[in-house]
Amino acid sequence: MELLTINNVWMMICTALVFFMHLGFAFLEIGLTRQKNTINILFKNIFIITVGLLLYALVGFNLMYPTWAANSSGYLGDFIFGISAPLKDGVLDLTYNEGYTYWTDFLFQGMFAATAATIVSGAVAERMKILPFMIFTILYVGFVYPIAGSWKWGGGFLDQLDTPFYDFAGSTLVHSVGGWAALVAVCLLGARIGKFKNGKIQAIPGHNIPIATAGVLILWLGWFGFNGGSVLSADPGLTSLTLVTTCLAAAAGGVISAITSTILFKNLDLTMFLNGILGGLVAITAGADVMSPMDAIYIGAIAGVFIVFAVSLIDKLKLDDPVGAIAVHLICGIWGTLAVGIFGDLASGSQFVSQLIGIGSYAVFCLLTSFIIIFTLKKTMGIRVDEKEELEGLDTHEHGMDAYPDFRLNEH
Amino acid sequence: MELLTINNVWMMICTALVFFMHLGFAFLEIGLTRQKNTINILFKNIFIITVGLLLYALVGFNLMYPTWAANSSGYLGDFIFGISAPLKDGVLDLTYNEGYTYWTDFLFQGMFAATAATIVSGAVAERMKILPFMIFTILYVGFVYPIAGSWKWGGGFLDQLDTPFYDFAGSTLVHSVGGWAALVAVCLLGARIGKFKNGKIQAIPGHNIPIATAGVLILWLGWFGFNGGSVLSADPGLTSLTLVTTCLAAAAGGVISAITSTILFKNLDLTMFLNGILGGLVAITAGADVMSPMDAIYIGAIAGVFIVFAVSLIDKLKLDDPVGAIAVHLICGIWGTLAVGIFGDLASGSQFVSQLIGIGSYAVFCLLTSFIIIFTLKKTMGIRVDEKEELEGLDTHEHGMDAYPDFRLNEH
Amino acid sequence: MELLTINNVWMMICTALVFFMHLGFAFLEIGLTRQKNTINILFKNIFIITVGLLLYALVGFNLMYPTWAANSSGYLGDFIFGISAPLKDGVLDLTYNEGYTYWTDFLFQGMFAATAATIVSGAVAERMKILPFMIFTILYVGFVYPIAGSWKWGGGFLDQLDTPFYDFAGSTLVHSVGGWAALVAVCLLGARIGKFKNGKIQAIPGHNIPIATAGVLILWLGWFGFNGGSVLSADPGLTSLTLVTTCLAAAAGGVISAITSTILFKNLDLTMFLNGILGGLVAITAGADVMSPMDAIYIGAIAGVFIVFAVSLIDKLKLDDPVGAIAVHLICGIWGTLAVGIFGDLASGSQFVSQLIGIGSYAVFCLLTSFIIIFTLKKTMGIRVDEKEELEGLDTHEHGMDAYPDFRLNEH
Repeated sequence: MELLTINNVWMMICTALVFFMHLGFAFLEIGLTRQKNTINILFKNIFIITVGLLLYALVGFNLMYPTWAANSSGYLGDFIFGISAPLKDGVLDLTYNEGYTYWTDFLFQGMFAATAATIVSGAVAERMKILPFMIFTILYVGFVYPIAGSWKWGGGFLDQLDTPFYDFAGSTLVHSVGGWAALVAVCLLGARIGKFKNGKIQAIPGHNIPIATAGVLILWLGWFGFNGGSVLSADPGLTSLTLVTTCLAAAAGGVISAITSTILFKNLDLTMFLNGILGGLVAITAGADVMSPMDAIYIGAIAGVFIVFAVSLIDKLKLDDPVGAIAVHLICGIWGTLAVGIFGDLASGSQFVSQLIGIGSYAVFCLLTSFIIIFTLKKTMGIRVDEKEELEGLDTHEHGMDAYPDFRLNEH
Repeated sequence: MELLTINNVWMMICTALVFFMHLGFAFLEIGLTRQKNTINILFKNIFIITVGLLLYALVGFNLMYPTWAANSSGYLGDFIFGISAPLKDGVLDLTYNEGYTYWTDFLFQGMFAATAATIVSGAVAERMKILPFMIFTILYVGFVYPIAGSWKWGGGFLDQLDTPFYDFAGSTLVHSVGGWAALVAVCLLGARIGKFKNGKIQAIPGHNIPIATAGVLILWLGWFGFNGGSVLSADPGLTSLTLVTTCLAAAAGGVISAITSTILFKNLDLTMFLNGILGGLVAITAGADVMSPMDAIYIGAIAGVFIVFAVSLIDKLKLDDPVGAIAVHLICGIWGTLAVGIFGDLASGSQFVSQLIGIGSYAVFCLLTSFIIIFTLKKTMGIRVDEKEELEGLDTHEHGMDAYPDFRLNEH
Repeated sequence: MELLTINNVWMMICTALVFFMHLGFAFLEIGLTRQKNTINILFKNIFIITVGLLLYALVGFNLMYPTWAANSSGYLGDFIFGISAPLKDGVLDLTYNEGYTYWTDFLFQGMFAATAATIVSGAVAERMKILPFMIFTILYVGFVYPIAGSWKWGGGFLDQLDTPFYDFAGSTLVHSVGGWAALVAVCLLGARIGKFKNGKIQAIPGHNIPIATAGVLILWLGWFGFNGGSVLSADPGLTSLTLVTTCLAAAAGGVISAITSTILFKNLDLTMFLNGILGGLVAITAGADVMSPMDAIYIGAIAGVFIVFAVSLIDKLKLDDPVGAIAVHLICGIWGTLAVGIFGDLASGSQFVSQLIGIGSYAVFCLLTSFIIIFTLKKTMGIRVDEKEELEGLDTHEHGMDAYPDFRLNEH
C-alpha cells in the first residue's frame, strides 16, 4: 500500500510533466515560425491536447491496452467505448498494478497520445488549413496512435517476438509515429511560398526565439516525466538512472550539434543547438533505462551529428519542415531505436534485427495510414490554404485575431 | 511515518504547483490586455503573492482554521498573530495530521489565499489605481477570504449543516469569493474608455496571445496541485481520480466552448477556447473527488456553454471585465458548486439545497464586504486613474517604466 | 526500501525544479537587457546547462565529493574521470545513501553546478565575447566550483572546523561563488557603452519585463527544489519548514525592497520588487533549515533593504551589472551566510566567526581564480566585443540571427 502510494505519486508527477510538454511544443512551434500564424498554431495545440484527452478516454485507452480477446494475434485491440475503472467491493481496485492506479495509468498514457499529433502540427505549420488538420488529428490520435502503440506497449505482436522489440518510452511508438505522418504531410502539402526560390533555399526565420528556447527547456523538463514515468513505478535505481541518461543525452546532443554546425557553417547557431538537445532527447528515449551514462552521451552525441545533416538533407530534398520535426522526431527516433541494439544492456545482433522489424512495421503502418487520411482530405476538402491567406497569415483569415495587436510588425 | 512522508511529499509538490499558478494568472491577465498596462499588472500580481503569503502567516491561517473557542457558532474564527508549529518534546509534532506537517498545511493554504485577490486583479485591469487595489488586497486576502474559508474548510457553520455544504477545492470558497468581489469592483469602477462607444461593444484585443495561452496551460498544470492537493493526502485512488476528472473537465470545457462560439460567431476563437478550459477547471473544482470521468465531462461541457453566454451577457450588461474573470470564476464557480448536488456520489435534493445555502452565504458576505471596502476607497481616495493616465497607460504614470522599450508600438 | 523510494522521488523532483531554474535565469537575463543581445544570452545559458552537466559527469562530481585519499587536509579532492555507480552483486548499490541513489546524487548536484556560471553570465551581458565566456565557464564550472564546494559539502576543511562553517543550500557555495566571479568580470570588462555618460548614470531599460518577471517566478519555483532538495531526503518536518522559510524570505525581501525603493525614489519600481524577492531567496539559502518563519521574514526583509542600497552603490562605483547579479547573489549571499550566526538554531559567536572564515575563504579563492582566468583571457584573446558589435548587438555579429525578426524595433 505504501509502495503503491509512492509509485503513484511519482507517476502523477510525471503525468503533470508530460502535460506541460504541450506548452513546450506550442512555444517551440510558434517561436520558429512567423508571427502571422501564431494564433493558428496555438489553436491547433490547444485543440490537440483537449480533443486528444477526450478521444483517449472514449476509445484510445482501450484500443491501446486491449485484452486481445478479439484478436489473439496482436494486431488490433478492443473497441470499447469509454473508460471504466476496475472495482473491488465497490471501490477502486488498487491491485490493478503495483506502480499506479487505473486512473493514473489512463491519464499518463493519455498525455502521451496527444504528442504524436503535435509533432505533425509543427511540420505543417503556416500553410495547412485548420479543419483538415483537426480531422487528421482526431483520426491519428484516436485510432492510429493507439493501434500502433498496442503492438508493443499493449503486448501485441512486436512484444511477442522471440527477442521482443524494445522501445522504452517511445522513440518509435511516439516520436517516429508522429514523424512518419509529418513526412507524409510535408510531401503532400508542398513548401511554404518563398521557401525555395529559383531552386535556392531561403531561410524563413522564426519570429520569437526566446519563446522557442523556452519551449525546448520546457520540453527537456517534461522529458523527466516522459522517460522517468515510463519506468511505470518509482523504482529508485531505474528512475534515477533514466533521468541521468536522459539529461546527458540531451546535453551531448546539443553540444555536438552546436560544434558540428559551427564547423560546417562558421556560425554559432542557437536553433541548431536547440534541435540537437531535442534530437538527443528523442534518441535516448528508446533505451533510457538500459544505457550507462557514457552510452547515453554517445547516443546523444551521434544524434547531434545526425540532426545537422538531416536538417540540411531535408532542405535539399525541397521538403519544407518549418520546425525541423522530421529531423528531430523521425531521424533521431529511428537512430535511438536502433541504438538499443548497439549500446547498453540489450545490445545484440538479434535485438538489432528486432529493432529493425519494429521500425519497419511502424514505417509501413504510419506511412500508409497517414497517406490515406491526408490524401483523402486533400482530394476532398483540400489541405492547403489559398495563396492570399498564406501570404497574409492564417491568423486573420481562419481566426479573425492577431497575436500581437499592439506591436508594429514587418510584413513578409 | 513512511505514509506521512509520502503524503507530505505530494502535498509539497501540490503547493509548488499552486504557487506556479500565480505566473499563469499574471500571463493570462497581461496577455489579454494592452501593452501599456503590463508593468502595472505584473506589479499587482507580484504584490498579491508576496503580501498574501505574509498576511496569511500573520493573521490568515489562524483565522481560517480556528479552534472556534471564541465562537462556537462557527462564523468568526480566532485572531492570533503569527504562526507557531505544534511541538512535542521540543521538536515538530508530526502527529498533527497524517497527510502533511503543520508547515506544509500553512504553505499549501497560503498559496490558495492569494488566488482570490488575483481574480479581482484581472477584472479591474487597465483602469484601477494601484494604491486602493493594494489596500483592497490586504483586506480581502488578510481577512475576508480566511473568514469565509473558515465557514467550510475551518469546520464552521456550513460544515455543520445536516447535509454539509460541499466544496472540495474551492469553486465557491476560492473562485466565487474572488468572483463576487470582481463583480462589485467592475460595477463601481466602470468600463474602460472606448469599451462601449455609442452603446456598441468595442472589443479591446489583448496584446500578447502566446503569453495568455501559456498562462492557461500553466494554470491547468497548477490545477493538478490545486485539486490534487485538496485530497490532503496522497491517497492513490482519490488523487488520481481527481486528476482525471480535472483534466477531462478542462478538455470538455474548452472543446464545447470552442464549438459553441464557432456556431454562434462563425469564428475559431482562441480566447473562447481558453476561457472554456478555465471554466471547466473552475466548475470541476467543487466536486473533483466525487465525480466519475463522464460526470466530469458533462460538468466541464456545460461550463463551456455557460462561458460563451456569460461573456456575451456581461458585455451586454455594459460590465467591462477585460479577462472574463466574472464568467470564468463566478459563473462557473456557482455552476460547479451546484453540480455537486446534481452529479456524482453526493447528488441529492438535500445536497442541492445545501449547495444553494453555501452559494447564497458567500454571495451575501462577499458582495457586502467587497462593496464596503471598494466603495469606501472610492469615496475617500478614489479608485480610478484619471483619463490622461488611462489613455497613456498605467505603466508610465504609476511605475515610470515600459514593458517593451525596444519594440515599436501602436498607440490605442 | 520504501523510505529510500520516497526520499529519492522527492530528490528527483527537486532536481527537475533546479533544472528549470535555468529557464528562470535565462528569462531574467534577457528580460533585463536589450533585444539586440537576446540570442547571445540564450546561447550562453544553453551552453552553460549542457556543458555544465557534461563537465560535472566527467570531472566535477568526483572533485566535489572526494574520498580525500589524496589530500587528507581537505583542500583539493580527487581527479577521477567519469562517473561510476557503486554496485553490489552487479546491480546498483542502494545502500549508497538513505536519501537518494548515486544517480540522483549526481544529477541533483550537477544541476547546481551550472548555476554559478549563470550568475556571471548576467553580469557580463551585452559586451563580453562569447568564446572567452565559454572558456571561463568550462574552467569555473568544471574546476573552481567543485573544488570550492568540496571544502564544505564534500567534507573538506571548512566542514572540519571546531564549529563547522554552515551553508545549507549555497548562499556562499553557489551564489557567492558566482557573485565573486561576476564582480571580477565586471571590473575587468568595463561598463557598457552609454551606461555612464559624463559621470552620470544612464539607466538602460530591459526590453521584455514580462519575461523577466516570469524568470523571477520560475526561479522562486525552482528554489522549492534548490532548498527543499538540500535537505537531502524527504524528511517531512525539515523539508516543509525549509519551503516555508524560503517562501517567507522571498516575500519579505520583495515587499521590503519595494517599500524601500518607493520611499527613496518615489516610484513603484517592479524591477526592485523582483530583485528583492531574489535577494530574499539567496539570503535564506544558507540557513533555510535552521530558521523559524519569523527569522526567515527578518532575514528576507534585511536582504530587501540591502538590495536597494547595493544596486545604488554598485552604480555609484561605476560598475555596470545589467541584471543586478552582484547585489543579488554576492551581497545577499554574504548576508545570508552571516545570518546563520545571528538568527535561528545555530546562532552563536563561534558560529558567526566560522561563517566569516568561510566567507573569507571563498572570497580569496574565487577572486583569485576568476581573476587569473579572466585576466589571462583578456590579455590573450580579449574579452570585450568591439565597439561596432556592441552598438549593433551581439546577435547579428556572433550568431547571425535576430531574436524578433517580425517585430519593428528601436535602435539604441
